[in-house]
Amino acid sequence: MSVAAEPRECSIARTLELVGERWTLLVIRELMVGSRRFEEIARYTGAPRDVLTARLRKLEADGLVERRPYQQRPPRLDYHLTPLGWSLLPVITVLREWGDDHLAGADGPPLVLRHTCGATLRAVVCCSACGEEVRARDLAPVG
Amino acid sequence: MSVAAEPRECSIARTLELVGERWTLLVIRELMVGSRRFEEIARYTGAPRDVLTARLRKLEADGLVERRPYQQRPPRLDYHLTPLGWSLLPVITVLREWGDDHLAGADGPPLVLRHTCGATLRAVVCCSACGEEVRARDLAPVG
Repeated sequence: MSVAAEPRECSIARTLELVGERWTLLVIRELMVGSRRFEEIARYTGAPRDVLTARLRKLEADGLVERRPYQQRPPRLDYHLTPLGWSLLPVITVLREWGDDHLAGADGPPLVLRHTCGATLRAVVCCSACGEEVRARDLAPVG
Repeated sequence: MSVAAEPRECSIARTLELVGERWTLLVIRELMVGSRRFEEIARYTGAPRDVLTARLRKLEADGLVERRPYQQRPPRLDYHLTPLGWSLLPVITVLREWGDDHLAGADGPPLVLRHTCGATLRAVVCCSACGEEVRARDLAPVG
């Protein structure tokens, strides 16, 4: 028996329409760590060039990435995150934490970050009201 | 000029090898909200059945999902997240927050959650040491 699809109205699905793809998220990571030029982004993500071109165009169309001139003669553009693109930092951060926790292997995490407070960064998802780490059993739908 | 790929050793890339795909993350969402059977997951994610079959197999092979018998005659199995699958709650949570913040439109977020502390959930990514929200300018690589 097959039932007609009734996809849930869902903010997760909407977000994934923009960034629910591996290369897209790796491009965003790469721009966050400071790569700007197409060649750098291609090199450090490993994305095939045609895929990368398509992903960058979509990111620009969706307002997450913008091109800016960095040279006049000949004219050249490089890539920057917009404020909307930077607002994906929490997404990138939790993906990194999960990989650090579950996929790091014997060498440990490939990148360790220090927070401005002095601690080695361990990022957790918290309730902004009480500061407690968010756990599934502590959540209930409203209404 | 084209430069050979040197993909960064990166926990984000490793995580995305497991869950860097839209349907995979929607399946995980759907299991988190309580769907168990193939038909339910297909219906509420909208995933094509062949794609869903492949994604569920990969999730099972990667240890994120397990099948359990729920009926003997005829034998039937349904799908559950393993503890490793549940550990993706922070990822699902921040994807939802981002969609709520940036893609909700006039009707507001499709799902509102209450935290056990009494507040409507607003989830933020924090430094576990000092409790401050993680911002890009507050991070620096170690070593």
